[in-house]
Amino acid sequence: MGVILAKYLGFCYGVKRAIRIAREHADGKSCTLGPIIHNPQMVERLKSEGVDAVENLADMKEGTIIIRSHGVGPQVYEEAKSRNLKIVDATCPHVKKAQLSAKKLVEESYQVVIIGEKNHPEVKSIFEWSNNKAVIIETEEEAKQFSSCQKLGIVSQTTVSGEHFKKIVEWLIQQKAPDVKILRTICTATDQRQAAAIELARDVDLMLVIGGKNSANTTRLAQLCSEECKTYHIETAEELSPEWLNKIEKIGITAGASTPDWIILEVQKKCQTILRK
Amino acid sequence: MGVILAKYLGFCYGVKRAIRIAREHADGKSCTLGPIIHNPQMVERLKSEGVDAVENLADMKEGTIIIRSHGVGPQVYEEAKSRNLKIVDATCPHVKKAQLSAKKLVEESYQVVIIGEKNHPEVKSIFEWSNNKAVIIETEEEAKQFSSCQKLGIVSQTTVSGEHFKKIVEWLIQQKAPDVKILRTICTATDQRQAAAIELARDVDLMLVIGGKNSANTTRLAQLCSEECKTYHIETAEELSPEWLNKIEKIGITAGASTPDWIILEVQKKCQTILRK
Repeated sequence: MGVILAKYLGFCYGVKRAIRIAREHADGKSCTLGPIIHNPQMVERLKSEGVDAVENLADMKEGTIIIRSHGVGPQVYEEAKSRNLKIVDATCPHVKKAQLSAKKLVEESYQVVIIGEKNHPEVKSIFEWSNNKAVIIETEEEAKQFSSCQKLGIVSQTTVSGEHFKKIVEWLIQQKAPDVKILRTICTATDQRQAAAIELARDVDLMLVIGGKNSANTTRLAQLCSEECKTYHIETAEELSPEWLNKIEKIGITAGASTPDWIILEVQKKCQTILRK
Repeated sequence: MGVILAKYLGFCYGVKRAIRIAREHADGKSCTLGPIIHNPQMVERLKSEGVDAVENLADMKEGTIIIRSHGVGPQVYEEAKSRNLKIVDATCPHVKKAQLSAKKLVEESYQVVIIGEKNHPEVKSIFEWSNNKAVIIETEEEAKQFSSCQKLGIVSQTTVSGEHFKKIVEWLIQQKAPDVKILRTICTATDQRQAAAIELARDVDLMLVIGGKNSANTTRLAQLCSEECKTYHIETAEELSPEWLNKIEKIGITAGASTPDWIILEVQKKCQTILRK
């Protein structure tokens, strides 16, 4: 009987950095544009510390705008400047690299393909840095249907798994473009968390995956774990129902890259309390 | 009963061009450096027309040196200049593209990989254009063992099959280099000839593959055909033995990219004569 944490879980480098930057600007006059990370509890806590979030730049008359970890397109920087707002950039450095890679490939006349989720804000930001010229490819089916071009430039959403990236690239290469440039803008944090979660899920009776319901990487962790054992995706300890742990010997815990440590600890403590009864 | 020619066979664009250029310089003072193409009969014929071959630049005191279709490294051009020889460049334009691609990749700090045969003169020439810095990869085993690097640039011998190229690239991509540039310097002539030869070999009782025994692409054609039906690799009609055609209904003929039309016609005529008896 016991509660085991995945070897890699929770905050990644980019998220830690974004929150640190936000806290450094908690002066009551700074706002993030959209939620700084995909975790409602952390966003709420930052608000109480003096960093609110706005949905549009038009909602701010003055002060500092904090660009969130997922990044934004170049026109947001322009607009913020034109509104005389101070800009603080908390874009994850890995995302920034993907954005600038897309920009450079377009400048070098490559047809850019972004491997990633069409509706994810990070992918949208990379798309905008491609001067809205990239094609976003999410599935193998889409990759098969991609029509060939002379110069094909490939970048990736940072949270795509290495395996998925490889499969899509293999399809794209089959189109036989004479010049293909592949910029592997994947961050290893996602693969590490996924591999650790799967390894743990194979060894326990139940997995608790903690993180925002709006977090793509947390949802993906939950999906992968559910293929190995009974799995629940929760945002906080409150959601954890004691009945779930009936007749359960070993509980595994993992958490998305945007899940703060204090929530992980709360869940862990609640599990231990229930198990002790 | 009959003799059928493969849909694509014989001289490719680069070979035709090289021979035309050599003939334009048949003034008795021009020599090719090495055999202009890998076909002894054609080389012999050019000699009778006034274009001899030399093995080394040092063998020439004056006149014009004709660079053969497989190309040479940059130092040969330098040496020819320093010996006051006139240079006529009959390098196949597809090979030239592979050479300049390797050169450019090295200039852009890529670790260059050439997919091709280590001992083929074309590959040696591409290697020399990489400033002798490329790694030549011939087999999947070698690709598996290739250790990763930050910037990986891939070019190809022009006569590599699309299928082999794809397999090697897939292995190399698995090494997860963050920046991979693939310049697909394959000429379609090889794939066309191979596909047409296989298609024909499946439909006939015997395949005759005509071309230099020193021609890599002819040898490969013979190998592919022999997997489908009884196959003979011959250089000329003289080698064709009447007994081979005993009880044979349908004969297929293909020829390497360096095999002249007149040899193909001679073989075809000899087959028909034997069959008519």
